[in-house]
Parts: sequence; structure tokens; C-alpha cells
Amino acid sequence: MVVLVGARNPLNIGAAARAMSNFGFLQLRIVNRYQLAFREARSAVGAPRLLRDALECADVPEAVADCSLVVGTTAAGSRRIEHPLHSIEPGAQRIRSHIASGAPAALLFGSEKRGLSNADIGHCHWLMRIPTREEHSSMNLGQAVAVCLYELIRTEAAPETADTAAPATGAELTRMERALLEALRLSGYTKPGAQAATEEKARKLLRRMTLSSEDAETWTGMLAKMQLRPRKDRRA
Amino acid sequence: MVVLVGARNPLNIGAAARAMSNFGFLQLRIVNRYQLAFREARSAVGAPRLLRDALECADVPEAVADCSLVVGTTAAGSRRIEHPLHSIEPGAQRIRSHIASGAPAALLFGSEKRGLSNADIGHCHWLMRIPTREEHSSMNLGQAVAVCLYELIRTEAAPETADTAAPATGAELTRMERALLEALRLSGYTKPGAQAATEEKARKLLRRMTLSSEDAETWTGMLAKMQLRPRKDRRA
Repeated sequence: MVVLVGARNPLNIGAAARAMSNFGFLQLRIVNRYQLAFREARSAVGAPRLLRDALECADVPEAVADCSLVVGTTAAGSRRIEHPLHSIEPGAQRIRSHIASGAPAALLFGSEKRGLSNADIGHCHWLMRIPTREEHSSMNLGQAVAVCLYELIRTEAAPETADTAAPATGAELTRMERALLEALRLSGYTKPGAQAATEEKARKLLRRMTLSSEDAETWTGMLAKMQLRPRKDRRA
Repeated sequence: MVVLVGARNPLNIGAAARAMSNFGFLQLRIVNRYQLAFREARSAVGAPRLLRDALECADVPEAVADCSLVVGTTAAGSRRIEHPLHSIEPGAQRIRSHIASGAPAALLFGSEKRGLSNADIGHCHWLMRIPTREEHSSMNLGQAVAVCLYELIRTEAAPETADTAAPATGAELTRMERALLEALRLSGYTKPGAQAATEEKARKLLRRMTLSSEDAETWTGMLAKMQLRPRKDRRA
């Protein structure tokens, strides 16, 4: 589950909830120092259901009471980190393993201005860092949530939707090549005596392109049509 | 670089810029249908420098004119996708390889409400999909940018092997597209009233092929010549 600690901006709370809904994490807990922000976010038009169902907690210990893994997120950098710090990929892998074993885990995000306090971090087993630039390390809250949750589901993500288009066969390319050469001949592109060179050029040109069967046929049709310009247009 | 097409909410533009700064992508272009939103985002307190330096473009072709790879982002799902679609991990790997070879690439994000239009997608070589849940697939703009850029920096860029030919830029593809459309029009291939459909078809056809700069130029020359069939051959 996601725990937002001390978020002050209703828009950020809403954005965090939206990312959770996008990536299928439906349990949100709010450590509620700024009740108003939460109320406002919850009543916003289009707030995801999980935001209406979110649990308000008085403090971090209450929010993570049933969690056997508590992970804080941080931009690191400035603060002296006494806690174990994992970068996001191996960190997410650990969280995934934990969740896969059926045990609940909490991912904590601090306030927009200050992140997690030292007291908050005290409740974490370890910290996870998103690899932002040193020159500008502090992420927007909703974006940090989105990136962490994306990393959590990344390896479970659907397999590549393969390019289903069948590649053009040799015969299809040959047909397209003939249509191209004929159009070139009729247009005067092919210089007298350079026919063989033009043929070779066209052949290579077509093989360098990655054409699907269907696209090769489209081209062949287009090129065939260019050989047959209707009489009324010829003089236009 | 990141291209925001038709973003309406200054907060989202600001959030996208912040994620770019976090992850070290410093070139932003705005296709500027809602000038006010951009002006407001740019003048916001704490706007990252890259937002002040962002380029305003009139349309997508202008925004991607110097890019030899144009990738659209989508929540997929509803729309019928004719474009090649990659999930984010292999997609990001392709973009990384492209950038590593020194060639410029653009990552396009559509408006908050509707995402990229079919016309916008027509300028893309392929689409990349973030693996959100089917039940709630539509991501917040700033979060979608954050997740895509995170995935782009997640692993080190794999150096590109082979393929030394520079890929065709957006401007080169646009020139080839114009030559093709003119040849089709003169040949009578384009049916009356179907001009827009033919344009879209041609645009997609060209982006599905992987064309080098040089090959795009060769095609443009060939197609231009087909528009100018010499008189003596016309009657042959």
C-alpha cells in the first residue's frame, strides 16, 4: 500500500491516487496532518474510488501497523542517511518479493517540501531512491509515486505486443521493384544506358526499407497508377 | 526531446518540465494550441530553466522537423491502432539506441483529455504504451512524462552497433510525403474527396518504413520526376 505522510497539496494527493489506480495499487493511507488537503482531494471531480476509500491515520506507526515491510522514498543527497538505501530497481525487486510472499508492505512518501522526516524514516526498514539528477533531485510527489509504482509493476508488465504485420516477401518486393522501375522509365528518371545501374539502385533501396507485405502492396499499387496518368491530366 | 502537443493545463506543463529536469532531459517543445497555458506555466514560481527555454511550435511537423525518430505515447485501449506499438521497456531501449547513435529523437505526449490525435500520430514512427490497468488506463500528463523519462534513464544507454546511415528527419519525410502526394494526385490515384484520407495513408506509410536520410532524398527525387513525365514519353 501507499502511505502519504503530510502531503499538503490536494492536487498532489489526487495525482498520487490516480497513479495508484493506473498501476493497480488500490490501498492508500494518509497520515493526516493537513486534514483539509485530504478532504479537498477526496471530493474532487473524478477522484478515483481508492481515494474515497483511503484510510486516515493519526501517525506513521498507525499507518504501517499491519505492514511487515515499510519502505521510505527519498531524494537522498542532502540528508545524512543512516538507513540502508537501495536504488529503485533492486528496491522494487525486494518489495515485489515481499508482496509475492503474501505479506503486506507499505511505501511511504513524505511531504512536498521536506520529504520524510527523520522520525518518519525511523519507522522504515530501508529507503529507496529514485535516480534523479543531483542538480535537481526533488521530484513532484505525484510523479514520484507514479515512477515507484511503475517500477513495481514493470517486470510484471504485459509482454511486447509483437509487430504482427508480416514482412514483405521477396516476390512482393520484386513486384514493387518492377512497378518502380517502370514508373521511373516512363518519367525519364532512368538515363539512357543507365538502366542496369538504376535497377540495382532500386533493388537496394527497397531492401533497405523494412516493408510489411501490406505496405509493399500499397506501394506497388501507387507506383502502377503513376505509370497510367490519365490523358486529361497529362496536359494539365 | 519532449514535445507536448496541445497541453491545456499549466500545472501539467510545469510538472512535465520538472520531471524532465529531474531526469536530465532539457529540451522541451510545445505545440502551441493554447498559448495561455504555456505562458502561465513558464512564468510560474520555480519553473525549471528548460521551461523558460522551451520552443513554441505551430504544429507537430515543425516540432519534429529535425528529429529522425518520432515516438508517440498512448494509453492505447480504445483507439484502433494501425501504428506499430511497443510497450515501454523495449520502446525505451529503441529510443536509447537511437539517441546513443547521436541522432535526435522526439517523444510526443498529447493533450490531457484526448491524448494524441490521429493526425499527430501520423507523424510518429511508432507508438509506446505505458502498462496501465485496463480499468483506468489514462494517465495524468506529468506522470506519464515522468514514467517514460524514468524508463529512458533506467538502464545505461546501449551503444548502437552497425547501422551507420543517418535516419531521415521529420523535415525530410515531409518533403518525400509532399512529392508522393503530388505524384499520386497527378496520376489520378487520389480519389476526389479522399484527399485527406490519402494524405493520412501516405504519412503513415512513410513512417512505418525505416528510411535513411539519403534514401528519403532518393525517393523524393524519383517521385518528383514522376510528376514531370516528359511530353514525348507521355504519348508513348
